[in-house]
Amino acid sequence: MSQPFWRTSLSAVEPNKILIRGYRVQDLMGRCSFGDVIYLTFKGELPAGNEGRLIEMIVVSSTDHSFLAPSIDATRFVASGGVPLQAAVAAGILSLGDHHGGAIEQCAKLLQESVPAGRSAPEIVNDFRRRRQRIPGFGHPWHDRDPRTLTLIAKAKEWNLAGPCLELAHAIGAELGLPVNIDGVISGIISDMGISWHYGRAFFIIPRVVGLAAHAVEETTRERPFRAIDLNDIAYDGPPERDLP
Amino acid sequence: MSQPFWRTSLSAVEPNKILIRGYRVQDLMGRCSFGDVIYLTFKGELPAGNEGRLIEMIVVSSTDHSFLAPSIDATRFVASGGVPLQAAVAAGILSLGDHHGGAIEQCAKLLQESVPAGRSAPEIVNDFRRRRQRIPGFGHPWHDRDPRTLTLIAKAKEWNLAGPCLELAHAIGAELGLPVNIDGVISGIISDMGISWHYGRAFFIIPRVVGLAAHAVEETTRERPFRAIDLNDIAYDGPPERDLP
Amino acid sequence: MSQPFWRTSLSAVEPNKILIRGYRVQDLMGRCSFGDVIYLTFKGELPAGNEGRLIEMIVVSSTDHSFLAPSIDATRFVASGGVPLQAAVAAGILSLGDHHGGAIEQCAKLLQESVPAGRSAPEIVNDFRRRRQRIPGFGHPWHDRDPRTLTLIAKAKEWNLAGPCLELAHAIGAELGLPVNIDGVISGIISDMGISWHYGRAFFIIPRVVGLAAHAVEETTRERPFRAIDLNDIAYDGPPERDLP
Amino acid sequence: MSQPFWRTSLSAVEPNKILIRGYRVQDLMGRCSFGDVIYLTFKGELPAGNEGRLIEMIVVSSTDHSFLAPSIDATRFVASGGVPLQAAVAAGILSLGDHHGGAIEQCAKLLQESVPAGRSAPEIVNDFRRRRQRIPGFGHPWHDRDPRTLTLIAKAKEWNLAGPCLELAHAIGAELGLPVNIDGVISGIISDMGISWHYGRAFFIIPRVVGLAAHAVEETTRERPFRAIDLNDIAYDGPPERDLP
Repeated sequence: MSQPFWRTSLSAVEPNKILIRGYRVQDLMGRCSFGDVIYLTFKGELPAGNEGRLIEMIVVSSTDHSFLAPSIDATRFVASGGVPLQAAVAAGILSLGDHHGGAIEQCAKLLQESVPAGRSAPEIVNDFRRRRQRIPGFGHPWHDRDPRTLTLIAKAKEWNLAGPCLELAHAIGAELGLPVNIDGVISGIISDMGISWHYGRAFFIIPRVVGLAAHAVEETTRERPFRAIDLNDIAYDGPPERDLP
Repeated sequence: MSQPFWRTSLSAVEPNKILIRGYRVQDLMGRCSFGDVIYLTFKGELPAGNEGRLIEMIVVSSTDHSFLAPSIDATRFVASGGVPLQAAVAAGILSLGDHHGGAIEQCAKLLQESVPAGRSAPEIVNDFRRRRQRIPGFGHPWHDRDPRTLTLIAKAKEWNLAGPCLELAHAIGAELGLPVNIDGVISGIISDMGISWHYGRAFFIIPRVVGLAAHAVEETTRERPFRAIDLNDIAYDGPPERDLP
Repeated sequence: MSQPFWRTSLSAVEPNKILIRGYRVQDLMGRCSFGDVIYLTFKGELPAGNEGRLIEMIVVSSTDHSFLAPSIDATRFVASGGVPLQAAVAAGILSLGDHHGGAIEQCAKLLQESVPAGRSAPEIVNDFRRRRQRIPGFGHPWHDRDPRTLTLIAKAKEWNLAGPCLELAHAIGAELGLPVNIDGVISGIISDMGISWHYGRAFFIIPRVVGLAAHAVEETTRERPFRAIDLNDIAYDGPPERDLP
Repeated sequence: MSQPFWRTSLSAVEPNKILIRGYRVQDLMGRCSFGDVIYLTFKGELPAGNEGRLIEMIVVSSTDHSFLAPSIDATRFVASGGVPLQAAVAAGILSLGDHHGGAIEQCAKLLQESVPAGRSAPEIVNDFRRRRQRIPGFGHPWHDRDPRTLTLIAKAKEWNLAGPCLELAHAIGAELGLPVNIDGVISGIISDMGISWHYGRAFFIIPRVVGLAAHAVEETTRERPFRAIDLNDIAYDGPPERDLP
């Protein structure tokens, strides 16, 4: 039988009252940054230090990446079909899977399970090598010295928000001979904040919506409808034209 | 206040019993084609003649279009992000908007409103010209003598399923000097069957899911992850690199 | 670097010509059922026997399930937000994950790996029990003697399309003391047809689009906009109203 | 023919360099709020005054609304199907249509076209009444004195960011005898900032992603899979069980 009852600890709504984790939304609007509210929503409590500022930096870091990301390209094609903004944005979000931002979830899970268990970087790396799997959160197709990661790491240290998870990420990177990429750094930071890995992908989804919306509007207002890949870029390697048997 | 009560005339479910418009699903499975069941679901009754066979032809006609459609391209990019099949397929479906199959809804609405009102093709064309709008369902970026439309029209006539709506579509095309395209022909046929224009896009969504699923699997199993448009195909025309003020 | 080159073995398009796996689409429209074309698209060749008819039965079996499925309910809520048909349908499709039709992929993978390896039902069941995992494709929250599964199994046998994969599914069900559910039966059948498990979810996505489209239209044309769960069905168990610190 | 060439004025990417509207992303991370970056992305330039702070308040205002919104409910159902986070979030976003946040686009368009044309509130109201249409952005099913709107209006005035568009919104509300709702206030504010109505829905999509992600995680981690509406809440009003003809 289905469960007729819904429950949530996130928010409560009455006429003219909206509570987020117990706080009145108008109070939050006056005093808290969007980064604070992301922290509050995911953790249940407001930050004690500069966690909200660091989350604000995380979301600023990942808004856009030109056409060099499947998310942006998917949104461009969908926008060209003649759809409302939310549909074009949703298409881009759908691409944020295991190979595109999804590594935040996987890497945060690894760090959050490994640190309490006392597993070392060499153990972890050997374990993945044995299973012939890539460790998520290391290396980048475009950026080997990603300025976003350097900035985040510097601020996490300055604000005493760098802890054992970010440290383990660095150790794994050193062991692999690969830089911790933007996904890996975000994983380390949110893990040290005590945010569950289940929320990992959200830290990429939230900011990317800004870029996706802008690309959708640009496509709709500047370009002709109905995009398609150019015939010259397509190779067909199936059966030649044939008659039905 | 919200409405706590849900109602439907489409289907009923009890343990070990599923009724579609009153018919037991196992009875339909044995005796009806998928085209029959589409007709039944949308109209409420089973076809009296060859309507189900013609719908079967409609859905066969629109399963795939190589990379030359935003839907396929969106699904390819999303699949490359590392997502489950349903997410890649959903992204392609999202693109089926006003400029990509959505014309079936618009054209069917036009036909279903114009035929009972006795509006002629010249009146309709003049009206759109006055408002400087394109009439949906005419002309095609790739196919000016689309073999799919010719086949559908021939069978609709053979099976006595071509009526005043398809006739009006032809008259509008003649007035415009443009061929009725696949969207327009489907619009005419479903309108003559008495299927509401609200269902129009479904006749493109249903078959395209087959092609989208196949492209998603092909992308996932044959290609490397994380597709992006090639740098050489991108022009940036925004502000040059600059310092913060 | 990105890969600028696109390839497909599925279809080819030239002006006024669309080939699906080499066959002209207008030829397929005249002679093949939608089930045949699904088989052709996924396998690369047309069926030799009644495979297309059995696939037609599979897709007829899963079009709708009233409100007793997350897919239908998601589409209802999204439709009530005031969106085009394709967006409402896409939302329902998105729910077709590991717990909702996704079992077809998982079960087909299990069967397709186990049969060639000669693994027996008791081995498989013990293996899952050791890992404390549920085997996908067995048991159903609503239907313990699902008439759809009985019908599919009977026809698969009648048409000599039941092979070792469907047999293994039955043996696993017997070992578990649970009926093979609709996902499990579809898994066995497509596996015996030699269709890769990667396509598994597609056999549920394709038909469900019909029901989703009908529910979206029914919601839009019969109900008031902006559905929400009733206040009386909601329990808030988060922090009580509080002041900012 | 398709257009093989992609262009954007939004961002540029080179190895180890990401420019947003010309600014290096690491510079923005250090000095700008997320609200500033939203403004920059959509307008092309950084705010001259407190625009970024006001946008930060706008996005804080709309993160969550318990189950009393189709977006949250859709995400809950989709999450219960067993899908990755981005798919559950995308489903909720899809519902943000004409009846759910989409009014921001419609109302902003109305204001941005009416103010330069010098159209008065009575003219606008009479025009909509003549066409028997609702003016988007006024009245709310839950909140007749929405604390979010009061807070936004107060700050817009305090920071000299309230202009003729917000004023016209108030005048229309007075004429209608309905409060300007959260959509209407956001419309007025972004219009006075000179942000095109095309971006309207984005101001609701961006924050709602936070709530949707949290609801998806809560559903996945606290509830059993496969949600469905309770049988007792469903009425079937279609044909009774019947035999095939």
